[in-house]
Amino acid sequence: MLLAYSMKVVYHLFSGGKDSSLAAWILKKLGYEVKLITITFGVLDNWKFARETAEILGFDHEVIEMPIGILEKATEMCIKEGRAGNAIQYIHERALEYIASREEVKRISDGTRRDDRVPFLDLSKARSLEDRYNVAYIRPLLGLGYKTIRELVNEIFVVVEDESEKVQKGDYETELRELIRRKGHDPSQIFPKRHVQSRVVGLR
Amino acid sequence: MLLAYSMKVVYHLFSGGKDSSLAAWILKKLGYEVKLITITFGVLDNWKFARETAEILGFDHEVIEMPIGILEKATEMCIKEGRAGNAIQYIHERALEYIASREEVKRISDGTRRDDRVPFLDLSKARSLEDRYNVAYIRPLLGLGYKTIRELVNEIFVVVEDESEKVQKGDYETELRELIRRKGHDPSQIFPKRHVQSRVVGLR
Repeated sequence: MLLAYSMKVVYHLFSGGKDSSLAAWILKKLGYEVKLITITFGVLDNWKFARETAEILGFDHEVIEMPIGILEKATEMCIKEGRAGNAIQYIHERALEYIASREEVKRISDGTRRDDRVPFLDLSKARSLEDRYNVAYIRPLLGLGYKTIRELVNEIFVVVEDESEKVQKGDYETELRELIRRKGHDPSQIFPKRHVQSRVVGLR
Repeated sequence: MLLAYSMKVVYHLFSGGKDSSLAAWILKKLGYEVKLITITFGVLDNWKFARETAEILGFDHEVIEMPIGILEKATEMCIKEGRAGNAIQYIHERALEYIASREEVKRISDGTRRDDRVPFLDLSKARSLEDRYNVAYIRPLLGLGYKTIRELVNEIFVVVEDESEKVQKGDYETELRELIRRKGHDPSQIFPKRHVQSRVVGLR
């Protein structure tokens, strides 16, 4: 009983990118038992890249399939708005709620940063999430600027970086681009051109 | 040379309270060499309580005396506004700038939290501080809610808590109250009545 009491389990949204990897690493340093969660909508199997990184980093990893309707709504938003910001925000909020609503979940976490525009929960949204689901919402990178994140990432991880479509990871964007394509639209008109993506492929 | 290169020194504003102590502990876990800084205006010697906690936690500690004019201006603000919020914010911004302006300082830090109203630097103020002084500004507690902070503090530290004037620590408030008193005003009319203060007195 004492052992169970002392375990602090946190469910952490994880893509295999450097931000969510660094956040997971910090949570572990703070004494949390980190369970990585990658979201899929069943469209592609890009969650496998997140699993690969999870294994390299030595964390438990679970893939959760969320209703395709959420990705479809996000796709509509992208096509209507010509931008992906609100759609990414929409998916992220639904993902946090989906995990937070599980009976066993008392702590949820992600790799969102101070300098992120999306996805990002402002103070009232963060508190609302905590209150509605009775969870603690932990964002280890929120108080860190880009210099600090770069310094820690370079020290801890081996990272590959390239433009979005070349580096594969387990993020929302990959399936969102695919569904936009299937609906006959060009995702490169919706996502920023020089959006550099990263994936962690090793520990230093 | 390699050793010097690999050292990541951070200058951390420290009162001896649980927030700034927890932030220091996190910075150490992230591999930083933490130099604690306590501000005094030379009015009282309450920095000694911060020093005591710094020694208990095993960190380097430096006391920096800032110009009394800053505390005087903050005192005027308190008396004029009947509240201490803007004054505390004013002192904190000046303290961050004062430390960031030192030649050797590349990283500064504090124990401000997501749920703090003051002191708190919004995104544009945080970026401006970093840009003007070419430093990284790290806030380890910014992404943590009160549940998470309570959980970590209880696990790591022995804390004494009581109302403001009973627990002594090395914060701005103690000297600010004293100067308000010396100017013939009652600090208890300016600071919130049931403002619980904490000081870390041991490691578990």
